[in-house]
Amino acid sequence: MEIPKNHPRYESLIRRNRLIEFYEKGIVTISGLISHGRGEAFDYILGEKSNDYAILSEKAALGLILKSKKPVISVNGNVTALADDAIIEFSKKYGITVEANIFHWSQERIEKIVKHFESKGLSILGRNQNMRIPGLESNRGRCEFEGIFSADTVVIPLEDGDRAEALIKMGKNVITIDLNPLSRTSRAGHISIVDDVNRAFKNMASFDRDESISIYEKFDNSKNIVKILEFMSIRLSSLKDWPDNL
Amino acid sequence: MEIPKNHPRYESLIRRNRLIEFYEKGIVTISGLISHGRGEAFDYILGEKSNDYAILSEKAALGLILKSKKPVISVNGNVTALADDAIIEFSKKYGITVEANIFHWSQERIEKIVKHFESKGLSILGRNQNMRIPGLESNRGRCEFEGIFSADTVVIPLEDGDRAEALIKMGKNVITIDLNPLSRTSRAGHISIVDDVNRAFKNMASFDRDESISIYEKFDNSKNIVKILEFMSIRLSSLKDWPDNL
Repeated sequence: MEIPKNHPRYESLIRRNRLIEFYEKGIVTISGLISHGRGEAFDYILGEKSNDYAILSEKAALGLILKSKKPVISVNGNVTALADDAIIEFSKKYGITVEANIFHWSQERIEKIVKHFESKGLSILGRNQNMRIPGLESNRGRCEFEGIFSADTVVIPLEDGDRAEALIKMGKNVITIDLNPLSRTSRAGHISIVDDVNRAFKNMASFDRDESISIYEKFDNSKNIVKILEFMSIRLSSLKDWPDNL
Repeated sequence: MEIPKNHPRYESLIRRNRLIEFYEKGIVTISGLISHGRGEAFDYILGEKSNDYAILSEKAALGLILKSKKPVISVNGNVTALADDAIIEFSKKYGITVEANIFHWSQERIEKIVKHFESKGLSILGRNQNMRIPGLESNRGRCEFEGIFSADTVVIPLEDGDRAEALIKMGKNVITIDLNPLSRTSRAGHISIVDDVNRAFKNMASFDRDESISIYEKFDNSKNIVKILEFMSIRLSSLKDWPDNL
């Protein structure tokens, strides 16, 4: 379907088409499509842009990544569809390992995600899942020793709550990216980015290193989530600020 | 996937499985899956139950239906998956016509929806779409003369904004059911029910006739939507009321 460039929600409709396209490629799952719809609704409420609190958490996240010995970015089907180019740019800029890691596990889907990134010029981990995240049933815990298993910091965009909590229990620093500030994933994170995954990686690639490290050192995640909830609450009660074309 | 009955979000997960099952049957579309995810997010914020403002709008809607000469309920793929039994019960109780009417049109999908209701004991319209709703491009405007075209009141659950507005322009009384109080559909309605479609029809089947008519006669839709937005806004800012398992 052709979407006119001047459509008030052009970006959102393009994102939705990408999801459907990647579903047809076998990279996104059916439940990934429903999850995307949930994200869309929270993004409406946020105004479909990165607000000040999102920006602050993204600067803190970059600060933590820069201070980490071994940060790893976990990518699943939806993340691949929504933010492949932004992740490639960010990962190359700072030399960060990326690992394909999926909830509805199949070797075929892992392979498709790895190949997708390879076809765009980035080698990523995921093919040799030789370890398990403790506390998760077999396939859902699979990961690579060289990647997530031995990382000190993991970035988990659009992650399932059980897995987010299991990574915390392993003692890792966890950075979440999730449009729902109330999801178990967002609540589990040490740094919880409440923003679209593509905007989050684009923003992180653009920030100043020193400023980000200094923001990280004084960042209060719980306080920031409360601010985001207040922001959403105000948005919801002020109809007049809403886009015309939901 | 087996869902334990004591799961805090059991009903929501059952609904999601129904959607996927009806997608596999060819009744729900891919974009219907994404739309359902949007609905889920708004339902989280509402607390996944019918609040007082939803109940009030549902009583007013029943009042309007009872005062109408020819009310018609429009059903699409998602509505069929989510509320088939509740619609059959409501429609039989009051002898209300039901018509299959879909946005992503195909004769095959219309046929599947009509047959689905027939297999559950209710004959519905939709097979003989011999008229057009003015202002909509060809297939999206299709409807039956005996149904939506000649109705004085139409109930349009989970409807597209363009179609809601086109029905208003035809001079019909329009009752919307949509979990997003800010959608163009909700904004277009004369009575806008912000509730899950299954809960809405179950509730409407249970109300007292006379009370509903008297509520309809003094119902203020804009005021009710503002109350719902206030309710959602308060819910969002009060983290402690949230279910544990989003």
